[in-house]
Amino acid sequence: MEQTARTNKDLIQALGSMANKLRIDSIVATSEAGSGHPTSCMSAADLTAAVFFYAMRYEVANPKNPVNDRFVLSKGHAAPLLYAAWAEAGAFPVERLKTLREFTSELEGHPTPHLPWVEVATGSLGQGLSCGVGMALNGKYLDKTGNNVFVLMGDGENAEGSVWEAAEIASYYKLDNLIGIVDVNGLGQSQRTMYGHDTEVYRRRYEAFGWHARSVDGHNIAEIISALDEAMATPDKPSVIVAATKKGKGVSFVEDKDGWHGKAFKKGEELDRALAELQPKISSTDGLKIKPPEGRNINAGSADSATAKSSSDDQYVIGKQVATREAYGEALARLGDANPFVVALDGDTKNSTYSEKFMKAHEGRFFESFIAEQNMVGAAVGLSSMGKIPFASTFACFLTRAYDQIRMAAVSQANLKLCGSHAGVSIGEDGPSQMALEDLAMMRAIEGSTVLYPSDAVAAEHAVRLAAEHRGIVYIRTSRPKTPVIYSADEEFAIGRAKIVRQSSEDKATIVTSGVTLFEALAACDQLESEDIAVRVIDLFSVKPVDEETLRASGRETNNLIITVEDHSAWGGLGDAVANAVSPSGIRVYQLGVREVPRSGKPEELLAAYGIDRASIVNAVKSLT
Amino acid sequence: MEQTARTNKDLIQALGSMANKLRIDSIVATSEAGSGHPTSCMSAADLTAAVFFYAMRYEVANPKNPVNDRFVLSKGHAAPLLYAAWAEAGAFPVERLKTLREFTSELEGHPTPHLPWVEVATGSLGQGLSCGVGMALNGKYLDKTGNNVFVLMGDGENAEGSVWEAAEIASYYKLDNLIGIVDVNGLGQSQRTMYGHDTEVYRRRYEAFGWHARSVDGHNIAEIISALDEAMATPDKPSVIVAATKKGKGVSFVEDKDGWHGKAFKKGEELDRALAELQPKISSTDGLKIKPPEGRNINAGSADSATAKSSSDDQYVIGKQVATREAYGEALARLGDANPFVVALDGDTKNSTYSEKFMKAHEGRFFESFIAEQNMVGAAVGLSSMGKIPFASTFACFLTRAYDQIRMAAVSQANLKLCGSHAGVSIGEDGPSQMALEDLAMMRAIEGSTVLYPSDAVAAEHAVRLAAEHRGIVYIRTSRPKTPVIYSADEEFAIGRAKIVRQSSEDKATIVTSGVTLFEALAACDQLESEDIAVRVIDLFSVKPVDEETLRASGRETNNLIITVEDHSAWGGLGDAVANAVSPSGIRVYQLGVREVPRSGKPEELLAAYGIDRASIVNAVKSLT
Repeated sequence: MEQTARTNKDLIQALGSMANKLRIDSIVATSEAGSGHPTSCMSAADLTAAVFFYAMRYEVANPKNPVNDRFVLSKGHAAPLLYAAWAEAGAFPVERLKTLREFTSELEGHPTPHLPWVEVATGSLGQGLSCGVGMALNGKYLDKTGNNVFVLMGDGENAEGSVWEAAEIASYYKLDNLIGIVDVNGLGQSQRTMYGHDTEVYRRRYEAFGWHARSVDGHNIAEIISALDEAMATPDKPSVIVAATKKGKGVSFVEDKDGWHGKAFKKGEELDRALAELQPKISSTDGLKIKPPEGRNINAGSADSATAKSSSDDQYVIGKQVATREAYGEALARLGDANPFVVALDGDTKNSTYSEKFMKAHEGRFFESFIAEQNMVGAAVGLSSMGKIPFASTFACFLTRAYDQIRMAAVSQANLKLCGSHAGVSIGEDGPSQMALEDLAMMRAIEGSTVLYPSDAVAAEHAVRLAAEHRGIVYIRTSRPKTPVIYSADEEFAIGRAKIVRQSSEDKATIVTSGVTLFEALAACDQLESEDIAVRVIDLFSVKPVDEETLRASGRETNNLIITVEDHSAWGGLGDAVANAVSPSGIRVYQLGVREVPRSGKPEELLAAYGIDRASIVNAVKSLT
Repeated sequence: MEQTARTNKDLIQALGSMANKLRIDSIVATSEAGSGHPTSCMSAADLTAAVFFYAMRYEVANPKNPVNDRFVLSKGHAAPLLYAAWAEAGAFPVERLKTLREFTSELEGHPTPHLPWVEVATGSLGQGLSCGVGMALNGKYLDKTGNNVFVLMGDGENAEGSVWEAAEIASYYKLDNLIGIVDVNGLGQSQRTMYGHDTEVYRRRYEAFGWHARSVDGHNIAEIISALDEAMATPDKPSVIVAATKKGKGVSFVEDKDGWHGKAFKKGEELDRALAELQPKISSTDGLKIKPPEGRNINAGSADSATAKSSSDDQYVIGKQVATREAYGEALARLGDANPFVVALDGDTKNSTYSEKFMKAHEGRFFESFIAEQNMVGAAVGLSSMGKIPFASTFACFLTRAYDQIRMAAVSQANLKLCGSHAGVSIGEDGPSQMALEDLAMMRAIEGSTVLYPSDAVAAEHAVRLAAEHRGIVYIRTSRPKTPVIYSADEEFAIGRAKIVRQSSEDKATIVTSGVTLFEALAACDQLESEDIAVRVIDLFSVKPVDEETLRASGRETNNLIITVEDHSAWGGLGDAVANAVSPSGIRVYQLGVREVPRSGKPEELLAAYGIDRASIVNAVKSLT
C-alpha cells in the first residue's frame, strides 16, 4: 500500500513533468513556425501526458500494428501537442518539432497521415469522435483486438452535431473500447464557448446519450488517471472524461485569457517569459514511456460466416430491367464473399439503396448507421484507417450532409467507397428534397476522388468491383428507375474509360451521358436515325477521371460537336467534366442539365420539363447540326 | 368547472375526430397519388390536429402575416398530413388534396413554399428545428411578435446531429417561443429506430440540452393539449413534447407494423378496409378552426441602435493592402446601417471572417452560432422566411458542413447570403483541413445560386451590396491574404459581369481568374510583357452566372485561347464555369487549379507547388501560344 502510494506519487509527478515538457515543446514549435495554437495545446497537456504515458498501449516503432490502441486528436489545432507527445515517446527526435508547418515537414498545421502515427486527419472540428467510432467498431466487432480508442476533443467542437451522432452510435453499439476526453478550456476562437467551464453540461449530455461520463479537474493528474482507469474498466458502454482546464495553462500571462487563440508566442522576450514559467515545473520524467500492447491478438473472421451468394454473374441478360441501385446491392453482397475486408454502412435507407443485400449476406460486417450521415462517413473513414474497405450508402442527396467528412476523408487518405442512390429528377414524385442534383459536382471537386456513374446492372457490378480494387475515395452514383441491361456480362470496364454505345461513320454529333439519360439518348438516336441523322452515343461511366482520349477522338470525328445530357444540375457535373476534358481541343460542348429547382411529378414528366429527355436531345441535335 | 370539463370533453372529442379526418385525407391522397407515406401521417395526426386546432394562432387567409404562429413539418414525408390540416382549416378545398404529387400541384411529395402556407421546404430530415430556431430568433429578438413556432419532428430524424445543434442554440438563446414535438412512432424507413418507443431517451436528451421536456401518449388528446399548454407557458427555455405514437395508428392491419414505410394503400379493397376502420371514429368537428393571432404586433427596430459607420466609401485607395475578408466585414457593417432587415450569423469565426465588424455595429442583429454550421445555415433560412436578409459566414471549407442545408435552402426559395473566407491554399500553414477547395463547385451546383468571388476590397464591398439586392442564394468567397486595391471606388460591378483588367490589341491569350490568383496573373502579365508577349487578364468576379459575352469576345480576340487560374480544386470551379460558358463556341480553355490534397506551407510556396502562381501562368502561356 505504502509502496503503491509512493509509486503513484512518483508517477503523478513524472506525468506532470511530462505535461510541462509537452507545453514547452508546443510553445517552442509554434514560436519557431510563427503561427499555431499553443494555448490550445497547453490546456490539454496533462490529459495527453496521462493518456500517452499511463493509459495507452502502443508499439511506437510500429504504428500500423493493429493491436495498438489508437489516439485521435479531434481538436486538430492542438497538433503541436500531439507531435510533442509522439516525439517524447520516441517516435522521432524532439528536435524535429521545430519543422512544424514547413512545406517539407510531416508535422503539418493540423494532423494528417503524412505522419505515420496519425490515422485520420483532423482540424475540421467535431469529426474525430466519428473516426474513433469506426476504429472502435473494428476493434470490438471485426478484428476483436481488445484495443482502446482515445479521442481528445475540445469543448467548442462539442457544439457540432456530428459529435452527438457519434455519441449515439457509440452507445448503440456498446463501444466500451471508445474513450472520449473533452478538454473544457471554456474559450473558443472568437469568444467564450456556450458553457464556459460548466463541465456538468457536457457530462449530463453524454450521460443522456448513453455514455459513462465523469467530470475531472483536467490539470489534476491523479484525478485524470483515476478517470482513465474507470473508463477502461466500464463495460458495455463508451466512456467520456469531461475535464475542466485552462487555455494557456502554465503561463500566467495567457492562462484562461481571451484573445490568445491561434497565436504563437513571439520569439524573444514573450517566448522567454513563457518558457521561464514552465521550465521550473519539470522534474524527472525518467521511466515514462508508452507501454506496449502485449498479449493482444487479432481475432477476426468469426464475425462473418459468409455463404456463397446465390446470384451468378450471368444473371443480367441483355434487355432485362434492373435498377442500378439494386445491382449495386447484389454486387456488394457478392464482393463480400470474395473479400473479407469489405464492410458496409447505411443510413436507414438499406431497403432503397439495396445495401440490405450485403447485410443479409454478411450481417457481422454491416453497420446500420441510422439517419446520421456525418457519423456514417466519419466511421467509415475510421474503419478504412484500420484496413477495412467500407462502402457507405444512402440517397445521393443526403451525402451532401457529410460533405465535410468526405472532404476530410481525402486529407485522411481514406480508402472510402460511397454509393448515392436516387440520383436526379428521375426519382419522380418524392420531389426535390430527395433528388440528388449536386452529387457529381461535389464528388468531382474532392481531390483525388474517382466518380463512377453506371448506366446498367452490368456497369454497376463492375463499378463496385473497381471501387474495391482502387485505393482511395470512389463514389458510385445509382438511379432509382429500372433500366434495361445493355452490356454483356463479359464487357470490360475500367476507371477512366468511356463506352461508345452507338456509332457510325456518318455521325453528326456525339452525345455523352450516363444513367437514365443514356436511355433517353438511345431513344433520341433511334428517332434521329429514322430521320437520317446519325449521332454517336457515349456512356461516360467514369465521370472522374474522364476518358479524354475517347471523348476527343469522338468529338473530332463528329463535327467537333459534343452534347452532354445529365440528370444533375447543369453546373459542375457530367457536362462540365466533358467540357473540362475536351475544351483544350476546341471541341464544342453543349450541356443539357437541370437548371432550376424541380418539382414533384412523374419521372418522364420531369425529364421532359427540365430538358433532359429524348425530345430535348433530338431538338438539341437538330438545332446544332 | 363542470362547464369547463364539459367543454374540454367536447373539444377533445372534436380534435380526435379531426385527427381521424386528417388520417383519412392523408390515406385518400396518397392512394390517389399511388405513392407517399400514409402511415407516417397517421402516427402524427392527433398531435397535428391539436397544434392546428387548439394551440396555433394563425390568420389562414393571410399566411404571410408576420404575427402568425408558424408550423414546420420537419418530418416532411408526412406532407399529406400537413396539406390535410391546412385544407381542413379552410386554406384550400379538401378536394384538392387529390392532386398530391402531380406535376402541376402545389402539393408536392414533400412540402415546399410553392404552397403559401409552407415557409421552408422539408424532407431532408433533421433540418426543420434549425429553421424553427431562425423563426423563433426573429420572433423573440427582432420582430418581437410574441408568436410561437411549432416544429413537428420524427423520432428517426432525432439521430441527425443537426437537431442537437438546433437544440443547443435554442436553449442558449432562451427561445421559449419554440415548441418541438417528437412523433416517436418507433419505426424508421428500413427497420426499428435506435430506441423504439422509449420516449424517455429523447426526453432526457432534450432536458440535457436545456429544454423543458415532457413525455406524452401521442394519441391521447387530453395529454397533448395539456402538454401544449405547459409548453406555451414555460418561460426562458424552449419546450419539447415527446409523444409515443404508433405508425399507421387507426388502421389495425398496418398499426405499429414494420414494412409499411412509404407505401400507399392500394385503391380497392386495401384502401376500403382502411377507410372502413377510420370512418366510424369521426363524429362532429363543428366549430374547430384555427384561432386568429389577435392582439399581436410587430415591435421591431428597438434591437438595433445603429450609429453611422465610421468608414466611408473612399477608404479604399488604389494600392492599399486589404484582405477581401476584411472588406466583407466592413461592407456588411455598413450595409446594416442602410438596411434594417440585414442580420448576420457566424460560427465562432467572426474575428477571421470579420463579421465581427457587423456584430459591433449592430449587436442585436448578430447571432453567434458557435461551431455548428448546419444549424447556422438552417437558422438563416428560417430568418429569411420571416423577411430578414441573413448573411452567414465561416471559413469557406466549413460551409461544406452545411451543404445539405444549402441545398434545401434552394428548395425553400430562401433569400440566403453566405460568405466563406480563407479560400484555397493561400491560407498557408494551417494546412488542408482549413483550405476551401470545393466551395465554388458546391455553390455552383445549387440551382438558382449566385456565386461571387471578389478580388479586392472594392469588389468585396460591391459583392455584399449585390448580394443584399439580389433575391436568392448568393455566395461570396473571400480570401485570407491582404491584396492591393485595384478598382476605384466608383467602379461598377454587377452580377454576371466580368472585369477586363488588362488588355491590348496584341493579346495572345486571355487569362481568367479571381481572388489571390488575379495578382499572380497580373505579375505573370508583367513578366510576359517584358518578353513581348501580350496577354489579356480578366477578373471573373461573378463565377455564376458567368459573363459569357465578355469571355466569348475576349477568347475570340485572343487566338481562341483562355487559360483559367483558380485557388480551388481543378474540378467544378472557376475553370469549369468558364469552359461551360465558352466551350459551345469552340474556344479552347486550359485550366490551372489544385489537383491534389495540399500540404501546410507558406502561401507563396503552396501557390507554386500546386501550379497556380505567376511562374505557372507564364509557363502555361508560353507553352500554349
